[in-house]
Amino acid sequence: MNRKINFNAGPSALPLPALERAKEEFLDFAGSGMSVMEHSHRGKEYEAVHDEAIALLRELLGIPATHEVLFLQGGATQMFAQIPMNILDKGQTAQYLVNGAWGEKALGEAKAVASMFGASIAVDNYGEGEGKEKKYTRVPAPSDIKINPAASYCHIASNETIHGVQFNADGSRPFPETGVVPLIADMSSDFLWRPLDIGKFGLAYAGAQKNIGPSGVVVVVISKELVEKGRKDIPKIFQFRTHVENKSLYNTPSTFGIYMIRNVLSWLKGLGGLQKVEEANRKKGARLYGAIDANPQFYRSPVEKESRSLMNVVFRLPTPELEELFIAEAKKRGMVGLKGHRSVGGIRASIYNAASYEWVDTLAGFMEEFAKGK
Amino acid sequence: MNRKINFNAGPSALPLPALERAKEEFLDFAGSGMSVMEHSHRGKEYEAVHDEAIALLRELLGIPATHEVLFLQGGATQMFAQIPMNILDKGQTAQYLVNGAWGEKALGEAKAVASMFGASIAVDNYGEGEGKEKKYTRVPAPSDIKINPAASYCHIASNETIHGVQFNADGSRPFPETGVVPLIADMSSDFLWRPLDIGKFGLAYAGAQKNIGPSGVVVVVISKELVEKGRKDIPKIFQFRTHVENKSLYNTPSTFGIYMIRNVLSWLKGLGGLQKVEEANRKKGARLYGAIDANPQFYRSPVEKESRSLMNVVFRLPTPELEELFIAEAKKRGMVGLKGHRSVGGIRASIYNAASYEWVDTLAGFMEEFAKGK
Repeated sequence: MNRKINFNAGPSALPLPALERAKEEFLDFAGSGMSVMEHSHRGKEYEAVHDEAIALLRELLGIPATHEVLFLQGGATQMFAQIPMNILDKGQTAQYLVNGAWGEKALGEAKAVASMFGASIAVDNYGEGEGKEKKYTRVPAPSDIKINPAASYCHIASNETIHGVQFNADGSRPFPETGVVPLIADMSSDFLWRPLDIGKFGLAYAGAQKNIGPSGVVVVVISKELVEKGRKDIPKIFQFRTHVENKSLYNTPSTFGIYMIRNVLSWLKGLGGLQKVEEANRKKGARLYGAIDANPQFYRSPVEKESRSLMNVVFRLPTPELEELFIAEAKKRGMVGLKGHRSVGGIRASIYNAASYEWVDTLAGFMEEFAKGK
Repeated sequence: MNRKINFNAGPSALPLPALERAKEEFLDFAGSGMSVMEHSHRGKEYEAVHDEAIALLRELLGIPATHEVLFLQGGATQMFAQIPMNILDKGQTAQYLVNGAWGEKALGEAKAVASMFGASIAVDNYGEGEGKEKKYTRVPAPSDIKINPAASYCHIASNETIHGVQFNADGSRPFPETGVVPLIADMSSDFLWRPLDIGKFGLAYAGAQKNIGPSGVVVVVISKELVEKGRKDIPKIFQFRTHVENKSLYNTPSTFGIYMIRNVLSWLKGLGGLQKVEEANRKKGARLYGAIDANPQFYRSPVEKESRSLMNVVFRLPTPELEELFIAEAKKRGMVGLKGHRSVGGIRASIYNAASYEWVDTLAGFMEEFAKGK
């Protein structure tokens, strides 16, 4: 097989060993004579996988006993609504720091919930320009952030997949210090690529289809305090409490999705844990941003240096025509997924854990060659 | 491989050809050099699968142009809440006909939504006894049903997986005639095993993990009229409108789940369509209920004859000890998933499309032998 070099933003490349393991036992899981997806979610065979996935995640991230792990459905997009539904009561306010398209989407759903419940949302927007033309090129610095101590929570999207800006990438734009206000973060494209002080977050959530597994599962790490505070007057399926009490088995979960997550987490552990993984990711980021910065006449990063994402590297070429040619030429060399999001254009290379240094090096080498030829 | 005879209620057996096809191309989908789950949900390779799954479902069920097809997340359990959120306005009433555990669950979530929105729910319960001790042994006959013409909709669970009762199994307990009131049905374990006049339903929904594919996808067939009537003041992710406008690609769907559904639907089409499939299912049902009825001293169906489910066949033995022994002996012969739901006990054989006549015949043969030996 001629495996593609896959820079998709999500669903994205998965580690080959995790895929191979799944293929190997696809028809006959652990000698059970059935596919893992044919097992009951309440049977001991699947339950072992489910429990292992939770245990591996706890181990890799060092999740403290104060926090619960959930595997839910609906992706981060559903969480945009489900979080305020749980946590925002009548008369309360939540604070949204917005530095990209996903933060905007989270804000939109929170506003809908707030208006259903008679609550309100306060917004700090770090883009430039107005409305749909807004440009996002940075995450806020500590001095830009003023937390409202009366807010029920403060929400961020810690890495913006489309705009390529990230909190705490080089240390000078750390996660906001929110004091007594619970910090809630959409970490879909910012999860599991480095060690994380997860206890700092009231709630961190991540759609699986970047660094964790296939699409269809969203991982939620939530403090017991927030679980307990949650509203009880919403449908049971939307209460985090329900899923905590039932270990994410209240309704039938995406069993195959969680099985694949188990395979990915097990691969991550085999690599030596998240410190090792971070080293590899920093090396990849340095190589790729190095290739951009080495050719300032040709390549341009629209992102403030301190906010540059190590997961989604966005850059521009001198013209849209050259960008199109770049993508087409790269494709001929087996590299796919390089087209920037349709809302912003340009080039985007998503280099999650499963994208190897060799892949990134191939891209960077091609960038050097392509710039020389023009 | 020693493939198990799998009578799981869901997640359940999948057709072997659909699994084999997935295994074959697991690492290299359609020669693309990537797994199907590594493709972008907005790329042409995945989109072809997505569109094919929708087209196959429309073709197999003869879904009229008045109705839309959606592939969503959260399972039927989420639909229990999401449906009233869309359709139930302040001051309105919905009518719930309850003839089993899933109808009860749907009712519970509808009540929570009604109380959020200042609406109400009217209940017709067809069980015997009180509260948690309630026994469900039948679906209502036409003469038992009185539709409230002012209701926003009427809800049924058309096959109760736990209690083994089913609408329209032998023709004498047809789906309710609701006139101008939209009929909404949880058809999770009642979908795609026979032709269906789907245009009759305002909305029919089904968790995939019985007859359609792996868990993590819920199929929704909804009339355009209900889509348009839907509330606009709830979060976008919960509005059916959003998913219709975006062809179920508003947020990232469970791409691998939908791919597996495509494989299953393609297998069903290859069998010759749903009329052929119904014939096979009726033959299986006759064999299994025949084995129960042939030994009335030993086997007992708790279900009224006219309501007997052809998907979930429940029966009892003289004692719980014999039931345990039956399950253990069956297991030795490669048959799994026969334990009745923990809330009701007894034996349950779920014989969805992927359970072959040979499997059912093996079970029936074993039943005859087991009864003789005691």
